[in-house]
Amino acid sequence: MKVLVINCGSSSLKYQLINMEDEKVLAKGLVERIGIEGSILTQKVNGEKYIIEQPMKDHKVAIKLVLDALVDKEHGVISSMSEISAVGHRVVHGGEKYAESVLINEDVMKALEECVKLAPLHNPPNIIGINACKELMPNTPMVSVFDTSFHQTLPDYAFTYALPYELYTNNGVRKYGFHGTSHRFVSAEAAKMMGRDPKELKIITCHLGNGASLCAVDGGKAVDTTMGFTPLAGLVMGTRCGDVDPSIIPFLMKELNLSVDEINDLINKKSGVFGVSGVSSDFRDIENAAKEGNKRAELAINLFDYRVRTSIGSYVAALNGVDAIVFTAGLGENSGVNRAKICEGLTYLGIKIDAEKNAQRGEAIEISTADSKVKVFVIPTDEELMIARDTKNIVTSGK
Amino acid sequence: MKVLVINCGSSSLKYQLINMEDEKVLAKGLVERIGIEGSILTQKVNGEKYIIEQPMKDHKVAIKLVLDALVDKEHGVISSMSEISAVGHRVVHGGEKYAESVLINEDVMKALEECVKLAPLHNPPNIIGINACKELMPNTPMVSVFDTSFHQTLPDYAFTYALPYELYTNNGVRKYGFHGTSHRFVSAEAAKMMGRDPKELKIITCHLGNGASLCAVDGGKAVDTTMGFTPLAGLVMGTRCGDVDPSIIPFLMKELNLSVDEINDLINKKSGVFGVSGVSSDFRDIENAAKEGNKRAELAINLFDYRVRTSIGSYVAALNGVDAIVFTAGLGENSGVNRAKICEGLTYLGIKIDAEKNAQRGEAIEISTADSKVKVFVIPTDEELMIARDTKNIVTSGK
Repeated sequence: MKVLVINCGSSSLKYQLINMEDEKVLAKGLVERIGIEGSILTQKVNGEKYIIEQPMKDHKVAIKLVLDALVDKEHGVISSMSEISAVGHRVVHGGEKYAESVLINEDVMKALEECVKLAPLHNPPNIIGINACKELMPNTPMVSVFDTSFHQTLPDYAFTYALPYELYTNNGVRKYGFHGTSHRFVSAEAAKMMGRDPKELKIITCHLGNGASLCAVDGGKAVDTTMGFTPLAGLVMGTRCGDVDPSIIPFLMKELNLSVDEINDLINKKSGVFGVSGVSSDFRDIENAAKEGNKRAELAINLFDYRVRTSIGSYVAALNGVDAIVFTAGLGENSGVNRAKICEGLTYLGIKIDAEKNAQRGEAIEISTADSKVKVFVIPTDEELMIARDTKNIVTSGK
Repeated sequence: MKVLVINCGSSSLKYQLINMEDEKVLAKGLVERIGIEGSILTQKVNGEKYIIEQPMKDHKVAIKLVLDALVDKEHGVISSMSEISAVGHRVVHGGEKYAESVLINEDVMKALEECVKLAPLHNPPNIIGINACKELMPNTPMVSVFDTSFHQTLPDYAFTYALPYELYTNNGVRKYGFHGTSHRFVSAEAAKMMGRDPKELKIITCHLGNGASLCAVDGGKAVDTTMGFTPLAGLVMGTRCGDVDPSIIPFLMKELNLSVDEINDLINKKSGVFGVSGVSSDFRDIENAAKEGNKRAELAINLFDYRVRTSIGSYVAALNGVDAIVFTAGLGENSGVNRAKICEGLTYLGIKIDAEKNAQRGEAIEISTADSKVKVFVIPTDEELMIARDTKNIVTSGK
């Protein structure tokens, strides 16, 4: 069984075709600049690139080209579209309706539309991608896998904001959380690596990329997460401020005479480690600047690490203990320096990091010492595989 | 030496006259409705009340009446104003200029004016109170004790927000923290009760009143605190929302068409346990409602306790361990139920609460068991005494 995984952004599209027998990626690709001059599709098969540059006025044209590329006689990996048994779509926001992935039907499409208000930047391209796929492959079952659904197990005292309660019941203002597919994947992998039943484990997963979030997982279920109503909340990120005193927003609007859209732009696109360092939103640039003596770059890194460390501490209290901490995503997987700095301040938990193991890259690995009281792992995330697995399970179970 | 302590609000004034030889309160009082119809002064001496009801058009009139009440032949406690050696003023915001209390002179008054922008509701009445006192007692030395100064030892990575750095350097947007006098007082008292040097202790102080904040104290110095740029941030409070996803502010402004002032009002005065429960901002009312089965009241309490617990966890990580946790202020001193609930989730730290001791009220007491790995205290706060002590020290040292 082969599953196509689609992740649609506003002008981009990522895809993977996965053979579910061995969970191997047959082909993966990226389409950029959809609807903009200079549209380009890049497909990789066994490391070999196949590039198509031609105008793509919308997502339907782009997806048609993806399908063509997959069946291309020279560069493709399947002989006909009928080999694609199902399509799994990444969808950012499932609101409160979906605590699990779901087979897409008319009701689901309606629910996705209803969530547009909650995710105005993300859900519309997801919906466009699904519709384009449905037109091109009307008889292929499709599954929606939500970034939010893993967090639907949060208890009310973790997801409710201390705002007038009507804002929750009438306007949907609550903590939803994101990166759910990633947190679900790496927490399950950690349990496997420990050879233990997830039900008996307390795990904190740290998804540290350009967007960053933590999740507290108790017995396999999410009980808290740092992102909130939107992906802005919680940790310090590339360009997002994370948690700040909410009063700062009205203060700055008055002080700098900013509109609602301008303050949104400021906290989402001009803040984070970029705003503090003034250098870049990319940690590699910031680390280089810090090495060259840039004090603001150094501060940005310290700020990021401190917030991760104290948020871990917060979730150890939420879980009343912790068995394992997992680092994943760009920075989490690649920066041993940051992992070490974060864990240095957690020796009260009996955490000990093996410097040699922590310096390794690329594979899932336990980086704590044998006598560490808490296991610490680096586990590359694989949201696409998780989406493909869900898609296969739902399609074959006939749910 | 007798010190008068003054705490001016916009239409109220609290005062205490303290004999510094034995630190006994000779008289204390409250003036309400200054500048409003129905002005009233209530002074207490040895539990006996003395009430003056007469128009008070401004703080100067009010303070004149306070001085009259203190020297009143029948109800007063001193024979002449000259017995007051110094006046200590509580001032909310000292900005970044004052890491300690300070003898008031022209430069200090200028600095207080500069901080009005940061504390538009609080600093103006503080300044009015100081000026009124100076007119009435021109030769009495006065000291300013700031709510913010104890937190000036926070490291940059704890006080900097992940916003464009210019907002800090140009607009003063950073974490200041409040309740500093209270955190300083109870952390020092805890060290005394432990018979240990504060320099070797890691203490987390929980000031839980209608306004609520935590402080992480390392070696006698504050290293983090939950309130931020304003007293809105951090924990859930009576009517303040504490930390929420900052994106919610622009979302609600758009969704409900709110002005900057209206959203400020919503997050400061209509949120917190009041907003969630819909019952009251007073915990006693909310607890009663919860007992009668009100689910939103129960949720408000759970929310409050959960946030305190996870914030303690966060500060244990900030300190990389903890020797003592202190509860103080209204709820912290009086609600054994909430203290127990908060500590129940902290057994991973080896915390054990003695239920019998935890049920006691009124005095400073250790409520953890003898074998608890972390000491837990209830210590009634005494900001007035702290202000009087600072005032005495500064005046006698001639700083």
